[in-house]
Amino acid sequence: MEEAVQKMADEEVVLLAAKFSTFAERAKIALAEKGIKYELKEEDLNNKSHLLLEMNPIHKQVPVLIHNGKPICESMIIVQYIDEVWKDTAPLLPSDPYQRAHARFWADYIDKKIYPNGRMLWKSEGEVKETHAKNLIESFQTLEKELGDKPFFAGESFGYVDLALIPFYSMFYTYESLGNFSMTVDCPGIVAWAAKCLEKETVSKSISDPQMLHEAIMEMIKKVDS
Amino acid sequence: MEEAVQKMADEEVVLLAAKFSTFAERAKIALAEKGIKYELKEEDLNNKSHLLLEMNPIHKQVPVLIHNGKPICESMIIVQYIDEVWKDTAPLLPSDPYQRAHARFWADYIDKKIYPNGRMLWKSEGEVKETHAKNLIESFQTLEKELGDKPFFAGESFGYVDLALIPFYSMFYTYESLGNFSMTVDCPGIVAWAAKCLEKETVSKSISDPQMLHEAIMEMIKKVDS
Repeated sequence: MEEAVQKMADEEVVLLAAKFSTFAERAKIALAEKGIKYELKEEDLNNKSHLLLEMNPIHKQVPVLIHNGKPICESMIIVQYIDEVWKDTAPLLPSDPYQRAHARFWADYIDKKIYPNGRMLWKSEGEVKETHAKNLIESFQTLEKELGDKPFFAGESFGYVDLALIPFYSMFYTYESLGNFSMTVDCPGIVAWAAKCLEKETVSKSISDPQMLHEAIMEMIKKVDS
Repeated sequence: MEEAVQKMADEEVVLLAAKFSTFAERAKIALAEKGIKYELKEEDLNNKSHLLLEMNPIHKQVPVLIHNGKPICESMIIVQYIDEVWKDTAPLLPSDPYQRAHARFWADYIDKKIYPNGRMLWKSEGEVKETHAKNLIESFQTLEKELGDKPFFAGESFGYVDLALIPFYSMFYTYESLGNFSMTVDCPGIVAWAAKCLEKETVSKSISDPQMLHEAIMEMIKKVDS
């Protein structure tokens, strides 16, 4: 009995997240893929909890995974941690070192190109904004080329790079409307890949509704402008 | 005999680097720590080789590790690859998943804070430059706090975070002279830690001479200004 209690205590998993947080959604998908039960604590980012400030004093950001009281920060570091601790279910990174490096390269590419260029669509105007829209499409097209004819980035099954990119699906509508382009026209392969990912419940139940996210971003822009 | 030849061919290791490249130095240290023989090809970054453009078509940057003809890009991804392939000698990442996540967090912190703030000391002027100098010192002080009384970031032996940070030692003199501060006064613990790292030949033989690097950066600034 005591051992069983101990075992449960050993698996206390808490996720500090926030509504519409693309990066927190990565952690949610990883936990869902592994079938891990956890407590979700949604932060109000305008009024961060003591727990968040205590668990991530350096960046003060979500997501934070708290496993048996110990915090892990930064979304793809969390995903790797989850993959290493619960290694027997649904491996996310391949086992071959070269394939692992390859997956890490593309996840890093997403962080360097998709997120910052996308964000500038509502943080800039005029020519600067146009340049970022152009960079964003080109980055999606580079990812589309890397995907090729495969259903998922690593081949037949959903993995690390898919997980890194798919939460941005919820942004596609916002990217299109602010950047004045069409994902379906410019990156049909990425749109088809996203549809394939969304067939998985671990994904569809973890990511934001594109329309609601769009409204939230528009609301935020209005507040900043007023 | 044929098998021996095959074995050697299996270990063909080439590093595409460039003089004064902080990020290439990370790969050099990792290879030195593991005792791996490799061919060093120094790129002229003003006239990049066909090999570099072919091996890293996405970022077109050094370092690139080419292992048996297959390229691995991005410095800390290279370091992890080296650590995974040659796992029996001088492990760089700890084996415990939590300690691994912790090391990855601080290496990521270095990439996000030290490199970009440092670079802005010669890419900006006036108040902007002052803000970056302030951020840089604060980031070093945060790292100093994380280091604490330990000789190395992970404890008693040189590891992943040490390797990520130590090539920036060659920049300290440039940071101080451009940012108008003193590492010895503001971050004595980091200076003492660097001295400890430099006692290792794998480090001292891999990183740039601070004075020569300083002259190269001054030369570069003069060219941009003229």
